[in-house]
Amino acid sequence: MGERDLAGRLAAYRAAVDAALTRWLPPQTESPPVIHEAMRYSVFAGGKRLRPILVLAACEAVGGRTDDALPAAAALELIHTYSLIHDDLPAMDDDDFRRGRPTSHKVYGEAMAILAGDGLLTHAFQLLSDSAGDGVSPTARLRIVGEIADAAGSLGMVGGQAMDILAEGKAVDQETLLLLHRRKTGALIRAAVRVGGIAGGADAAALESLTRYAERVGLAFQIVDDILDLEGSTEEMGKTAGSDLRKGKATYPSVFGMETAKAHADSLLAEAKAALDRLGEASWVLAGLADYVGRRRS
Amino acid sequence: MGERDLAGRLAAYRAAVDAALTRWLPPQTESPPVIHEAMRYSVFAGGKRLRPILVLAACEAVGGRTDDALPAAAALELIHTYSLIHDDLPAMDDDDFRRGRPTSHKVYGEAMAILAGDGLLTHAFQLLSDSAGDGVSPTARLRIVGEIADAAGSLGMVGGQAMDILAEGKAVDQETLLLLHRRKTGALIRAAVRVGGIAGGADAAALESLTRYAERVGLAFQIVDDILDLEGSTEEMGKTAGSDLRKGKATYPSVFGMETAKAHADSLLAEAKAALDRLGEASWVLAGLADYVGRRRS
Repeated sequence: MGERDLAGRLAAYRAAVDAALTRWLPPQTESPPVIHEAMRYSVFAGGKRLRPILVLAACEAVGGRTDDALPAAAALELIHTYSLIHDDLPAMDDDDFRRGRPTSHKVYGEAMAILAGDGLLTHAFQLLSDSAGDGVSPTARLRIVGEIADAAGSLGMVGGQAMDILAEGKAVDQETLLLLHRRKTGALIRAAVRVGGIAGGADAAALESLTRYAERVGLAFQIVDDILDLEGSTEEMGKTAGSDLRKGKATYPSVFGMETAKAHADSLLAEAKAALDRLGEASWVLAGLADYVGRRRS
Repeated sequence: MGERDLAGRLAAYRAAVDAALTRWLPPQTESPPVIHEAMRYSVFAGGKRLRPILVLAACEAVGGRTDDALPAAAALELIHTYSLIHDDLPAMDDDDFRRGRPTSHKVYGEAMAILAGDGLLTHAFQLLSDSAGDGVSPTARLRIVGEIADAAGSLGMVGGQAMDILAEGKAVDQETLLLLHRRKTGALIRAAVRVGGIAGGADAAALESLTRYAERVGLAFQIVDDILDLEGSTEEMGKTAGSDLRKGKATYPSVFGMETAKAHADSLLAEAKAALDRLGEASWVLAGLADYVGRRRS
């Protein structure tokens, strides 16, 4: 694998994350099997593994060993997956398909889908508490628990989803939309990069660089997602194109205009890459991921 | 307060827990206010605070300071509360009232009730990660995170709720009912007592005694709950008497017979108190709680 083979490195990260998830989720033989089957069904549903990839890339960017960041990487993917299961519920966004497959409640029923989500969220913290097999200090591990809980909770992702539901079909101003995006998707992406850095032993200056990078990539990622929902094909998206519009969701292009949205995405990604300067060569995967987010929209 | 004033001690524990919950939940002024209002609505809905009381009593039983166990006590109450919000949802047990008040989804709608539950579960781990203001080591705190995640997850409480839903309206054998009770209510009660001990610095022998106590009190508590559902008045229960029967829920009396259920509850509580022998005088509150569970059913 060449030093700068981005696709190869991402594939290696994905393989490590998938192996960890396979190993660390409760076996399907555990009673009752249906809840553990439902948990795995959604975890292995073709996700891009963006958040765990960011965890591992951030860990390497500060000179850490990816094995030390693997529990946090797996935990963030479980939390992302639980949020999708709950978001898809009839009482929430009421989606029957995700990435071309029936959503959890269509396969297992609403009750089991709610519980599968609850189980994944809880298991994420179980993984973070289990200190076997890595070299992260208890103090750093606790800090990782706190970072992830902050990002996923009612002041982060859960609060963002609540704002999203409250905003449906309403006019939303720019400030509210930015707060909504920062919480609903930005907080977990920011936490992914930060906990990767913490697991890798980042000092305060390196963590500050990672945070600047993450905040900009996170918002750019969401802007691009909003643009693709309007301009992309259903195949590219893995979900029905135009669905935000039909649901009356506030999006970056609808609030800021399409040209401004594209310009903001580009400048955020340039700023994200600039924030990596202090980290040097080791941050090349993070830089490549910023480019990748940018290419998705073109 | 007299040394053996059980009611006084329990009232003091409750006051400490309520003050901690008031202080440690996100303020209702945080955006969006409705999610934080919903979280507080269910946390301050007249619960008995049994789990946090067990945490604090177990901490004192091994000579610890209750302040050191307060984050774990508050976290367990948040997890218990989230489980009630999700259990009450239309897709689950579909209950409109709990303790005489409308349930979360009746007040805030289903989407916000799901999110309030998610937010409480996540915030529990935020509290456990925050090391300010107590003297528990990072290693012990991580162990507490792990104990609580194990007890609350798909191999514990969430798995028990899944079993409960799958068992509705079906004949359940004795072994299945015991596993269901051990997971749905037993696991969190066991964790409450154990993490109280861990926060209080319990050695292995003391933790073993606490665990024996907790497993027996937890099952007895559930048996008494099942008995009261059949024999108690709606007023005593705070929920509609006979509701388990109407929902076709498997209960201890329906599977083992009423006389056996009562005899088992009594012998479990006697064993629970015997398990405290090694802990001596400091465990008097735990002994009093076992007596209290027994008195509930007579």
